[in-house]
Amino acid sequence: MKKVGVAILGLGVVGGGTYKILAEHRDFYKKNHNLDIVVESVLERNIARAEALGVEASKIAGGMAEICSNPDVDIIIEVMGGVEPAKTFVLAALNAGKSVVTSNKELFCKYSFELEKAAKKNNCGLFYEASCVGGVPIIRALTDNLQGNKITSMIGIINGTTNYILTKMSCGGAAYSDVLKEAQKLGYAEADPTSDVEGYDAAYKLSILSSMAFHTKIPYTDIYREGITSVSSSDIFYGKQLGYALKLLAIGKNGANGIEARVHPAFIRAEHPLASVNDSFNAVYLTGDCVGEVMLYGRGAGAAPTASAIVGDVIYCATHSNYVYSAFNNTEKADPSVKFVTNFESAYYLRIAAKDKAGVLSKVTSVLSKNGISMERVVQEKDGVEGAVPLVIITHETHENSVKKAVADINATDIAKVEAVIRVVS
Amino acid sequence: MKKVGVAILGLGVVGGGTYKILAEHRDFYKKNHNLDIVVESVLERNIARAEALGVEASKIAGGMAEICSNPDVDIIIEVMGGVEPAKTFVLAALNAGKSVVTSNKELFCKYSFELEKAAKKNNCGLFYEASCVGGVPIIRALTDNLQGNKITSMIGIINGTTNYILTKMSCGGAAYSDVLKEAQKLGYAEADPTSDVEGYDAAYKLSILSSMAFHTKIPYTDIYREGITSVSSSDIFYGKQLGYALKLLAIGKNGANGIEARVHPAFIRAEHPLASVNDSFNAVYLTGDCVGEVMLYGRGAGAAPTASAIVGDVIYCATHSNYVYSAFNNTEKADPSVKFVTNFESAYYLRIAAKDKAGVLSKVTSVLSKNGISMERVVQEKDGVEGAVPLVIITHETHENSVKKAVADINATDIAKVEAVIRVVS
Repeated sequence: MKKVGVAILGLGVVGGGTYKILAEHRDFYKKNHNLDIVVESVLERNIARAEALGVEASKIAGGMAEICSNPDVDIIIEVMGGVEPAKTFVLAALNAGKSVVTSNKELFCKYSFELEKAAKKNNCGLFYEASCVGGVPIIRALTDNLQGNKITSMIGIINGTTNYILTKMSCGGAAYSDVLKEAQKLGYAEADPTSDVEGYDAAYKLSILSSMAFHTKIPYTDIYREGITSVSSSDIFYGKQLGYALKLLAIGKNGANGIEARVHPAFIRAEHPLASVNDSFNAVYLTGDCVGEVMLYGRGAGAAPTASAIVGDVIYCATHSNYVYSAFNNTEKADPSVKFVTNFESAYYLRIAAKDKAGVLSKVTSVLSKNGISMERVVQEKDGVEGAVPLVIITHETHENSVKKAVADINATDIAKVEAVIRVVS
Repeated sequence: MKKVGVAILGLGVVGGGTYKILAEHRDFYKKNHNLDIVVESVLERNIARAEALGVEASKIAGGMAEICSNPDVDIIIEVMGGVEPAKTFVLAALNAGKSVVTSNKELFCKYSFELEKAAKKNNCGLFYEASCVGGVPIIRALTDNLQGNKITSMIGIINGTTNYILTKMSCGGAAYSDVLKEAQKLGYAEADPTSDVEGYDAAYKLSILSSMAFHTKIPYTDIYREGITSVSSSDIFYGKQLGYALKLLAIGKNGANGIEARVHPAFIRAEHPLASVNDSFNAVYLTGDCVGEVMLYGRGAGAAPTASAIVGDVIYCATHSNYVYSAFNNTEKADPSVKFVTNFESAYYLRIAAKDKAGVLSKVTSVLSKNGISMERVVQEKDGVEGAVPLVIITHETHENSVKKAVADINATDIAKVEAVIRVVS
């Protein structure tokens, strides 16, 4: 039986969950994987927290140097989150010859170039399945299963907090701010929800996943990002009537014109498998030129699902020779040859407040038409406030810039104002 | 750049698809995986078929011995199907020191014990992602992602032919035999459809997948198997009214009482993610004690999706050191300590033809009650044929043997006959 010593950096929600699972499953891993996985050390300033988990005092490290020089530690699990001190610690671990398993999407997204270099130099493993979409086996699917495909499209619901909020808004018709408060109470959203609700978290993950899918670095700074803070429940309602579900989507496309990478709220047809991914569930829907459509679905966050991915990486690391696999051409910045498409094609949902019934529809359609936009559906709602009549339009596929121009043109008229623009994924 | 020589055994649908993908993607694999994958040899008796694919005459092997002694061949892809001569060829390949990638579920299900032994002895890779559920990345998810979990349940739609047939029956109300004929015309079902429609194909796959999930050999001979040939479209109709979809499910459970492994038609609630897996799509829905629920969805058959899995294994094999990973305790037969649960728990759908309206419901419920079965719903349909009134009952969870006994008891009365018994998955 092979003995595997691990150290856990940070005993927060995920770190604590990982500690518990490793302790409770020790015999299971002995029996089924011929591995005796032992937590040899933890790095946690909150001693009470470590003790509450049952960590022996002798295993609470005084600092990172102690862990790096501990010959009983083979694999270091980094679950601290954030860039520093996680980055310094991971580099120290790799330079000390320890393999690293991390759930840190922000760190990996921003510094994978540096981390991979250090891992290669020291011939250490560097595993990050837990960094994206929790327990959903997406990283290894990209590296070890679908790697024979040219992936043309990747659409993901990869943030649990926003999906929970949008699901609740969709079911109950409550306003964003009320649902956010409820989500914070239940622990589904953090006290400072910015990273989730503004789409940063999804953009970090999309950066990692699309880099792997398209075999070239997609920095998160090249990802168009728009959060859910200005989503109104009336748009969710109107969309539902038209057969759409509203989701915060992370979209990566690799086509003839270049690469698109964007995170924004979008309507998706109710029949699409992603439309019924609800609450805190996540899913990634991929299209490959050989495999066709594949969807991976599961819990994208939470202690145990994330720990499942971490422990999977630990067992993988312990049972395979120490190698570093570059899943993509991991340059520091985007390769200069990569063309990012910002004027992408999409259908659009427009909600327009029309001040005056007579003639307004013809005026609006004329503006759209001048911008080369044709309409698939138009619904003129009965109810309006303060004399404004809501006009809901679904366009055919058009270009982002054409819609921006058309919206400006409509707003420049004195009879109509565009109050919501939401992309529609076909 | 590493040069990788492969040989393909059999240029049928999957073999031909694999050949084409390897040829068309050669530059893509060079660029993104630093591998020059070259088909060095093919084994195909039908020379015209090989020529039509563009295989050079010099690459068409005269026999297996020629391939085994070809130093340019590193990996042998077996896509012949069936047990012989595939088994002899795969063993010859392994004994000649070649790694093997196979899509052959029947061979792997029946002889993985022998094949793994030979692979280990010769330190060769043996990969079989393509053997189960085509392009859906289920094998590696079990070995390399979810291996830290105790998997408690696995429910799969893992046969494309039967799912296509049941979807069509569900949409159009057509009879099984008519839809089968149509499926045969379209190439979705084989001329002899036995393996698919009687559930053998699904049982082979469930044997492999449940062995991996539960870390112990589940021989296909220990799997309860029931096909779809006696499914009637009226049951699909009644089920639909009650909020269920009918699917051929492959079910594996690992609980306190032992292991269940069964393939049979079953109703599943319309809200369940598996219920909307339609046509030739497949999916596996897993529950692990850490990860919770995970679903992997995609095309379970067809040339390109299966080739996607094969090529994924080829690239994996070429980029990793040659190791043989036993995903489960691969004994020849089931371990004597394993307890198979045959008297499993389930809810049931019963369709009963009642000869006489008055008193029949009370008689039937009394028989059910005597057998410890309680009812969740009862629907007495208006329309009947030849004086028989259809009575549809959904029971609460009960035991298989109790239902068998109750059915016999009902049939022993002179006023009612059970015409359909379909398990209901909650």
